[in-house]
Amino acid sequence: MPDVLTLATLRSEGKGALARALTRIEKAPDDTDVIDVLSEAYRAPQAHVAGMTGPPGVGKSTLINGLIKGWRARGKTVACIAVDPSSRRSGGALLGDRIRLATDPEDQGVFIRSMAARDRLGGLASMTVQAMVLMRALFDVVLIETVGVGQSETDVIGVADTVILCVQPGSGDSLQFMKAGIAEIPHIVAVTKADMGATAERARADVVGAMGLSEVAGGWQVPVLLLSALQQHGVDDLIVAIEAHADYLKDGGHLVGARRGQAAQWLIESVRERFGREGVRRAGYLGLEGEDSPFRRLSEVSRRLSSP
Amino acid sequence: MPDVLTLATLRSEGKGALARALTRIEKAPDDTDVIDVLSEAYRAPQAHVAGMTGPPGVGKSTLINGLIKGWRARGKTVACIAVDPSSRRSGGALLGDRIRLATDPEDQGVFIRSMAARDRLGGLASMTVQAMVLMRALFDVVLIETVGVGQSETDVIGVADTVILCVQPGSGDSLQFMKAGIAEIPHIVAVTKADMGATAERARADVVGAMGLSEVAGGWQVPVLLLSALQQHGVDDLIVAIEAHADYLKDGGHLVGARRGQAAQWLIESVRERFGREGVRRAGYLGLEGEDSPFRRLSEVSRRLSSP
Repeated sequence: MPDVLTLATLRSEGKGALARALTRIEKAPDDTDVIDVLSEAYRAPQAHVAGMTGPPGVGKSTLINGLIKGWRARGKTVACIAVDPSSRRSGGALLGDRIRLATDPEDQGVFIRSMAARDRLGGLASMTVQAMVLMRALFDVVLIETVGVGQSETDVIGVADTVILCVQPGSGDSLQFMKAGIAEIPHIVAVTKADMGATAERARADVVGAMGLSEVAGGWQVPVLLLSALQQHGVDDLIVAIEAHADYLKDGGHLVGARRGQAAQWLIESVRERFGREGVRRAGYLGLEGEDSPFRRLSEVSRRLSSP
Repeated sequence: MPDVLTLATLRSEGKGALARALTRIEKAPDDTDVIDVLSEAYRAPQAHVAGMTGPPGVGKSTLINGLIKGWRARGKTVACIAVDPSSRRSGGALLGDRIRLATDPEDQGVFIRSMAARDRLGGLASMTVQAMVLMRALFDVVLIETVGVGQSETDVIGVADTVILCVQPGSGDSLQFMKAGIAEIPHIVAVTKADMGATAERARADVVGAMGLSEVAGGWQVPVLLLSALQQHGVDDLIVAIEAHADYLKDGGHLVGARRGQAAQWLIESVRERFGREGVRRAGYLGLEGEDSPFRRLSEVSRRLSSP
């Protein structure tokens, strides 16, 4: 028997109802009650949304556990979305239980959902935005974790208010990226593994130098924090920095516009994805035989479908 | 004055003509002469296509220089495509001159092109396939380099005959990925920085163990090589391994089918991209005002466009 899908029932019925709602949204995103509850949630944002990105192995999972603990200790409810990179061949999520929970599963104030980034067209898993919007209306903080360098690192700016980039001491790669353009993206940089001592300090100095090359976005000075998730060192500083950025967005009047821009971008990408799929359906058989040239076939399909 | 665009003129007029042809393909991919020359090139493959992927900082650029030198010493001509991850905000390529050339710019047997992976829809830069097809008809080897973990790592299988995954000793991340699913993708694994001694040996053993968990694709046993690009150590082994995989594909009769499958996949993705773009155009204004819900707007646009 399906739940009545409204924010009120989700609030009163707890995590199990939310999990079922997310499954329903994935299965029937176009149903009227799904669109209704998402629209209701979109208009009633409660949480600040933080996005955390960085290469695998940098220590994001440990850091997330620390953040969740810290927020819970402050009495805040937390929802977390872990976006898994997918293996295209197998279609499955790579690291199913990537976030090892140190939290109490009975705690109604913590909700965690893993999503496979299996849809290449949407960048982030196409359901990430819907899940975020719903969670944003129900919790105090939403945390979205993405793995990767390149595309997914930039995708998180489309869904988070505050983007945290994690970099690792001694891995020249992150710095290379910082210097070359990704320096524009994060609002906070976390240098992990501060237990590496001098190496970590040097990494921090390098990042600060690299950040100096990029413009400070609208007066926000990007903090570069040294963290040791293992030793729970610096996690409080990170929470404070996220709160400071949240205040900056609210006080500066940037938040509503930024969120509307993200939603409009999602709309454009969704329209593109939907009609792309429809185009493939209308094109019919797209296999190639013998010496068929894919370039000529594309040109033929385009001509045929544009003049029906 | 435009060149006459045929394989014959590209062969006789050298690298300058090829560079101009690639620019023309990017600018006017639907022009008849562009489709003609691409179709001609598609039907006359000459090169084996190797794709190299792995996280930034792993040493791919140095390795590529080594490979190019090695192939040139064997009398082979080489074309190389370096796909740069893009900064979405700036739209530019991140690491413009990422591949530092140790080759003679006057050497007509080496051609290098950097491409920005700026099109999110196509995964790899949408022109990568066209450039590959053209180069494949003109050179003895085509080498495509992509950076990244996750999406772009798997995209390269859509364009290369032989996929080489580079991993770095001591970075647990690569192993995590190997174990979790990307082990299905590479045909050759290169453990770089063999100068790290015991750490490198252990990394190699770990990778061999991880590969053991995945099925051996159609009888090909994935070699795991220890390389030191810095010391030019093992590059010859890599060349030999690529040749062995090329022979395996040809002798087993897999090559033609695999390439046709890639081309068909490209065709489907191109149709999807093209019609997605057309859908956005037809949808008209997609901005959001006030409390407009993006979810309701998507549903309205879909309904409106499907019943014109």
